[in-house]
Amino acid sequence: MSFKSKITKTIRWGDLDPLGIVFYPRFYEWMDEASHVLFNRIGLNLVKLLKEKELIFALAETRAIYLKPLMYQDKIFIISYIKKILDKIIIIKHEIIHLKDNAISVEGYEKRICVKQLSDKTLKAITIPKNVRKILEKEK
Amino acid sequence: MSFKSKITKTIRWGDLDPLGIVFYPRFYEWMDEASHVLFNRIGLNLVKLLKEKELIFALAETRAIYLKPLMYQDKIFIISYIKKILDKIIIIKHEIIHLKDNAISVEGYEKRICVKQLSDKTLKAITIPKNVRKILEKEK
Amino acid sequence: MSFKSKITKTIRWGDLDPLGIVFYPRFYEWMDEASHVLFNRIGLNLVKLLKEKELIFALAETRAIYLKPLMYQDKIFIISYIKKILDKIIIIKHEIIHLKDNAISVEGYEKRICVKQLSDKTLKAITIPKNVRKILEKEK
Amino acid sequence: MSFKSKITKTIRWGDLDPLGIVFYPRFYEWMDEASHVLFNRIGLNLVKLLKEKELIFALAETRAIYLKPLMYQDKIFIISYIKKILDKIIIIKHEIIHLKDNAISVEGYEKRICVKQLSDKTLKAITIPKNVRKILEKEK
Repeated sequence: MSFKSKITKTIRWGDLDPLGIVFYPRFYEWMDEASHVLFNRIGLNLVKLLKEKELIFALAETRAIYLKPLMYQDKIFIISYIKKILDKIIIIKHEIIHLKDNAISVEGYEKRICVKQLSDKTLKAITIPKNVRKILEKEK
Repeated sequence: MSFKSKITKTIRWGDLDPLGIVFYPRFYEWMDEASHVLFNRIGLNLVKLLKEKELIFALAETRAIYLKPLMYQDKIFIISYIKKILDKIIIIKHEIIHLKDNAISVEGYEKRICVKQLSDKTLKAITIPKNVRKILEKEK
Repeated sequence: MSFKSKITKTIRWGDLDPLGIVFYPRFYEWMDEASHVLFNRIGLNLVKLLKEKELIFALAETRAIYLKPLMYQDKIFIISYIKKILDKIIIIKHEIIHLKDNAISVEGYEKRICVKQLSDKTLKAITIPKNVRKILEKEK
Repeated sequence: MSFKSKITKTIRWGDLDPLGIVFYPRFYEWMDEASHVLFNRIGLNLVKLLKEKELIFALAETRAIYLKPLMYQDKIFIISYIKKILDKIIIIKHEIIHLKDNAISVEGYEKRICVKQLSDKTLKAITIPKNVRKILEKEK
């Protein structure tokens, strides 16, 4: 069964636009945050992965659909899980949910590509290494 | 012919992540900025539209594809144009281009839905009013 | 005795600069967030205050001293309290503390001025109303 | 005579809070940006300095005073200059000015300390190297 990672938040004054609703790039900041939490929970700390194996799960594509606006002090949680694992790519789904009524406010995904940081700091897409793939598949 | 709006930028220290490349939610901040500039240029100032006609072009969906990372002091420009006009919805395309070699770094779109702010501050999707539609179509 | 408000955080990838340490404007975002939490806890929800009494505690001055850098996944807490109440002004102190060793990482303050939003949306500094002052003084 | 660096900006939708005025941490983002432009103009590119000499002008203290709020599409410029050079520290002053009437909207400073990044990535405050000091003093 699919592992689901969960983070919670309260909407802040600084997240809001002049309409009093969340300014949409914030949702991507939270999806990125949620992905880091997800990776960390399954034992793949992204900064360790970079330092020890020069591996990065770099962004290839992101998308979000906005269903209901969120406002000051709304309490939300974000459910994240790995939806697909391809040769070089994984897709992480995120649902941003209003705690009050469990209504989905935003749903989105991140397509992340497995990348090796070469010694000259350039980046090269590679097949997800077997040991990493194993961890990801267990959690899918 | 399609009207294209253009803004320019230089990548700042504060846009970068620990890899020294742009943190991806920034691209959405710039797409939002570019849309406001586009609307303003064709005579539809979004804040005026809100104050005078209670009209908002609210976000329904956004998406971006990341092709090449951008780094400190890279000079970029963003080309934006209206790609589609439906009954209640418009789609604005954005291309974020590296000035050095004209390579597209990021391409994305915003699907924006025409919304009326009712007197109780709730929002209701409506058909794009004719006079607004006319302006948009001229610029498509 | 002084009331102290406390929020906790874990440093995120998106908070970091290319050195891998927190980009300093984030600290001000967190101080603003901590002030909203403080006001809310003592019964002065800042958005309610605006809607019901047209009162704002607007920023007059902010300052921060950076003592120790914070990094990926560092766990912190922020201690906030009202340090001074003048006729029109309050000063809120914030200490951002590394959970690991209780070392202060950043200390700062916000000087906020009591402002009335007039019917034409302009702002005017006013003496803190007595009932609001009473609540603030109890918590000083 | 004092060298003054200047950048210009137009206030964006995404810079605003629910009152329709700039959310104050943005001003610090712009001061940081203005400092990087200043350093670059006098021949001290901060990223080069880091890569070639392991030198950083890290933040020790920042402060801002808010005089007049800024709103949607206000055009501003930021004047920045080096106000003081001490043994290990420089102070950079910033004035954020409304183009319309040349009124100062925000004034602030950054106290930056000269820091060496050691081989184990830890940071150590050092006396500003002579050749760097010379450049800074010429521009003070």
